Amino acid sequence: MLKGTLVFAQSGGPTSVINASACGVFQEAFKHDCITDIFAARYGIDGVLNEDFIDINKIDSEDIELLRYTPASAFGSCRHKLPALTGDLTKYYRILEVFKKYNVRYFFYNGGNDSMDTCNKIAHFMADNNYQCRVMGVPKTVDNDLEGTDHSPGYASCAKYIATSVHEIALDSAVYQKGRVTIIEIMGRDAGWLTASAGLANSTGAGADLIYVPERAFSIEQFAKDSKAILDKKGYCVVALSEGIHDGKGKYILEYDKEATRDSFGHVALGGVSTFLAKTLMSQYGIKTRAVELSLAQRCAAHISSKVDADESYQAGAMAVKYAVEGQTNHMVVIKRISNNPYTAKLEMANLDNIANAVKNLPDNYLNAQGTNITQDFVDYALPLLGGEPQVKYVNGLPKYSNIRPDIKQ
Amino acid sequence: MLKGTLVFAQSGGPTSVINASACGVFQEAFKHDCITDIFAARYGIDGVLNEDFIDINKIDSEDIELLRYTPASAFGSCRHKLPALTGDLTKYYRILEVFKKYNVRYFFYNGGNDSMDTCNKIAHFMADNNYQCRVMGVPKTVDNDLEGTDHSPGYASCAKYIATSVHEIALDSAVYQKGRVTIIEIMGRDAGWLTASAGLANSTGAGADLIYVPERAFSIEQFAKDSKAILDKKGYCVVALSEGIHDGKGKYILEYDKEATRDSFGHVALGGVSTFLAKTLMSQYGIKTRAVELSLAQRCAAHISSKVDADESYQAGAMAVKYAVEGQTNHMVVIKRISNNPYTAKLEMANLDNIANAVKNLPDNYLNAQGTNITQDFVDYALPLLGGEPQVKYVNGLPKYSNIRPDIKQ
Repeated sequence: MLKGTLVFAQSGGPTSVINASACGVFQEAFKHDCITDIFAARYGIDGVLNEDFIDINKIDSEDIELLRYTPASAFGSCRHKLPALTGDLTKYYRILEVFKKYNVRYFFYNGGNDSMDTCNKIAHFMADNNYQCRVMGVPKTVDNDLEGTDHSPGYASCAKYIATSVHEIALDSAVYQKGRVTIIEIMGRDAGWLTASAGLANSTGAGADLIYVPERAFSIEQFAKDSKAILDKKGYCVVALSEGIHDGKGKYILEYDKEATRDSFGHVALGGVSTFLAKTLMSQYGIKTRAVELSLAQRCAAHISSKVDADESYQAGAMAVKYAVEGQTNHMVVIKRISNNPYTAKLEMANLDNIANAVKNLPDNYLNAQGTNITQDFVDYALPLLGGEPQVKYVNGLPKYSNIRPDIKQ
Repeated sequence: MLKGTLVFAQSGGPTSVINASACGVFQEAFKHDCITDIFAARYGIDGVLNEDFIDINKIDSEDIELLRYTPASAFGSCRHKLPALTGDLTKYYRILEVFKKYNVRYFFYNGGNDSMDTCNKIAHFMADNNYQCRVMGVPKTVDNDLEGTDHSPGYASCAKYIATSVHEIALDSAVYQKGRVTIIEIMGRDAGWLTASAGLANSTGAGADLIYVPERAFSIEQFAKDSKAILDKKGYCVVALSEGIHDGKGKYILEYDKEATRDSFGHVALGGVSTFLAKTLMSQYGIKTRAVELSLAQRCAAHISSKVDADESYQAGAMAVKYAVEGQTNHMVVIKRISNNPYTAKLEMANLDNIANAVKNLPDNYLNAQGTNITQDFVDYALPLLGGEPQVKYVNGLPKYSNIRPDIKQ
């Protein structure tokens, strides 16, 4: 039995259910005598480097329970990618020093691709230096682009928000006899998983008429033609597209926008392609348009989170602890789907060596031949993940979220 | 007893609960023998002019029941303002002709300020021409700027969406150690009721740090100073502002944006002031920013509607029918608040002559002296209206909305 302190940290962009994993880690850890202390590092790996820890035993148990349905990263996040193990090892030695000081024997990193890379490197460094520490990855990403898992915790809640919002905006867009082309911009630099979910409400009423994702080349001219045809026929047209759509040569459509925000290297900062296309369709094609960017709300709208997703996120955290206590290290918890109807899945592990830095794209059979909408295959994949009503509690008509906050030191 | 057909129509911008009023009108009308037929006009008053009616008796009762929690205008809307009664009366004579043809004796118009003006004019024209018809206004507007009523059906659900989304975005904004100024743009050309609701989550955790509304003059320089001070202190800053904020001379802040969309008269189309301010703060003051426009989603997010609001909207429709059957005409249903804790209210009537075209602004005591945030008085006014959990039904994890749609002829 490896006895020692557990450190948990969150990394990368937040999701609606990332804190459910934290809740799962803590509540499972409480059950194991080998775990002597439970700390959360503030602001991801930076909290480890800075010895900036929150003692979970000192936190009110109701606030921990509320984490199950509280959005964003309650312990703070970072975008700190550790250097290669062949390079400067100063930071790794510092982590080892901190681990020794607090007798950290269980380390859990909750994040996406970059975070799994960090997790993988720490696991190798600790093993190389003969420091016994069980290092486990807990997956989360709204982008759903993590390899080795059927889907990523966080994706389904974001997809549920998108499917619901697009449905509602589609109903809103139908109200005038002479409507417009409503262009809804959705997160996704390289993968179209989130944008594809804009079509899920098609089955229950109204969804997006046209869907464009980064997996297929985008032509402004063809888009103008396709959206105008639908506008003329239906009286309005609802379009969902990824922020990262690009042309046949891989150039972001947003790069065509002279007014787009650019960094010192001339690279555009994504966000705003819907506004650019709305203006272009109006000025060059005389089509009435409206741009809607779902923006930050999509990744933190816990009030419409998926119960399946929140439960799986919780379980992913809890299972990571169970596996670690059993002796596992350098693994990430993954979800294996067993059946679609009813939806059932089980949690397993995958070696972090095979996961870090890989990106999973939307398969070809999830998109129609023209690349303008989803197929039934995608619906069969995604819809079961959205199941269950949101479990958020209300007080005075507003959601009640945990009081744990990274900017307020407990 | 005045026996005849009932015609109901929706007008102006949609809300999350406007269809609840339709449901109330129909379900109450079914109970009265004097109402021989129930029609909904498609696309507001245009449907009357075009004899474009939907026969409510032919619609599935489940779809009518689902209207209670279905957003947007299920029967379509219009922005058709009828001319003055001192001007060209052609359209009024056409309405009279249609009313006679279908024996329309009950007419209900569901909308905001402009719609109540239309309603008022039709009531006078019918009376002037000795055609007996009970004309009643059913209020709705997310803007909450209708006179004569404590609040307008539709406002509270929009406010609940805003308060919840701002809370969630504030949690999301707190996750990085070095954050930014997140500028959230909210609907409201002349009145700040909706933007003020961005502060309602302050009491339950996190809301907007700064709130700017059209009722107070806005200075870009002061804004940069105020937001930077909070950013430096907290590590991030959340700002909520109305699309219609303007400077001390009444010039929209958006007019300072050279790239803003303008009509042929040079007037700017509102929407995008958050992006303009985000760019300005970055380029002129070196402040890291992010713009978020809540856009269309705020007025149609029925999945987080207020039960108080949905119930009052339903009752407003039902009461309009009761009053009309009792003999009333040229009135609008209004809400009188009785108590705050517990929240109770009753429905009454107000003469349309006194309501049409008036605009109700946010009172002074609802804003702090600097005009940068709300006061407890506003919280006491608004929070009770958000009460009750959303009643929307879910199927396959997504909200189930009524199949009644303006663009699909029943």
